[in-house]
Amino acid sequence: MNTIGDVVVVAPDSPQSGMGHAITVDSTLYVEKITIDDGPQNEYSCSGTPADCVKLGIREILKRTPDLCVSGINHGSNSSINVIYSGTMSAAIEAGIEGIPAIGFSLLDYNWGANFEHSQSFIKTITENTLKHGLPQGVVLNVNIPNVSKSKIKGIRVCRQAKANWVEKFDKRQSPMGKDYYWLAGKFVNLDQGEDTDEWALENNYVSVVPVQFDLTAYQSIKQINTWNLND
Amino acid sequence: MNTIGDVVVVAPDSPQSGMGHAITVDSTLYVEKITIDDGPQNEYSCSGTPADCVKLGIREILKRTPDLCVSGINHGSNSSINVIYSGTMSAAIEAGIEGIPAIGFSLLDYNWGANFEHSQSFIKTITENTLKHGLPQGVVLNVNIPNVSKSKIKGIRVCRQAKANWVEKFDKRQSPMGKDYYWLAGKFVNLDQGEDTDEWALENNYVSVVPVQFDLTAYQSIKQINTWNLND
Repeated sequence: MNTIGDVVVVAPDSPQSGMGHAITVDSTLYVEKITIDDGPQNEYSCSGTPADCVKLGIREILKRTPDLCVSGINHGSNSSINVIYSGTMSAAIEAGIEGIPAIGFSLLDYNWGANFEHSQSFIKTITENTLKHGLPQGVVLNVNIPNVSKSKIKGIRVCRQAKANWVEKFDKRQSPMGKDYYWLAGKFVNLDQGEDTDEWALENNYVSVVPVQFDLTAYQSIKQINTWNLND
Repeated sequence: MNTIGDVVVVAPDSPQSGMGHAITVDSTLYVEKITIDDGPQNEYSCSGTPADCVKLGIREILKRTPDLCVSGINHGSNSSINVIYSGTMSAAIEAGIEGIPAIGFSLLDYNWGANFEHSQSFIKTITENTLKHGLPQGVVLNVNIPNVSKSKIKGIRVCRQAKANWVEKFDKRQSPMGKDYYWLAGKFVNLDQGEDTDEWALENNYVSVVPVQFDLTAYQSIKQINTWNLND
């Protein structure tokens, strides 16, 4: 991002996996200017969620609207239904609500030592195009990058979100004090055979770009539910 | 709900305001059978988020798919953009992902002593109709009820989500140890003049019903973004 513009980083001070679009309403928030990496960017650490970081970044740190909000790059997929659980995407969506062009980037590698090198050129292309063309009102981008070497990546595809879910299998254990507890665990199931989905693109070594909206209205269902005659 | 079916309650053991669609992936979960209210229902307390409660309820407590998942009734509005931040709606959406008909109910009264009495008949009507007609695949209902006496409520309206946002004004304070901290605070701004929105319905004393989807794809934008020629 330093090759594209003036960068201000506002990042959570702890991992935020599965944080969804949580915001901090019942607790206090801390922000601290810190130095993580060399470079011209300004870096801030925040005690809140990804969505909190965007709100604080705009109102208290920048005190202006930035040209772009980039979230991530996340370790692990935010494709298909994962967009709902994703802290990375909630930051992008929060910026979108504020009218800021926004992109969430994720690499399909959960490893802390993941190699992000091959992601760079795709991120640059998508970011520069977003700045050049803008994004439709109410839309942000969810970008996922396959975990394969750059030469194997066939290109970038604009996709729809695949129908998928997680079939949980809770891992039940007992504490040393004899109390039962659970770990959330599960298996990802792609229920969608379409070749226009993000899952298909990623499985076939394409970078997936899904335009994501935060108007959740199921417009096609309004007419149908009106036939229920709820006021009779 | 006890007048409609056999009820199993799985509820978070602490307030979950602003929890969004967070799930617990980096920590353990506890579930305990408890008794809160008189009645035939079975009640469980869970240390996790609303979405966790649904996952645990289905896989570990019921070990089957229920006919319906009802979330709430929430203290305070989950209309318009609030659906994104809502723990109540995330539980309904989580059930929807599992293919279960689901409804989130909210009353526009943040008061802990709120009177839910006048909500009952509307909740019964909407719930019974949902069981009778089913819901389209991939759709759950977001129901908000005005905080006025029952005689003032004009009826139930099926609506779209209003365009709105929160303009934050962080409340900056200093701890006794001299460290700056913030409280998230802000003003709700309805940016939508449409008379087909949930905000309009609620302001005009209608119960609002918004069909909500969790396929976030902005289909209308796919063609537009394809014109960027990202692979050139």
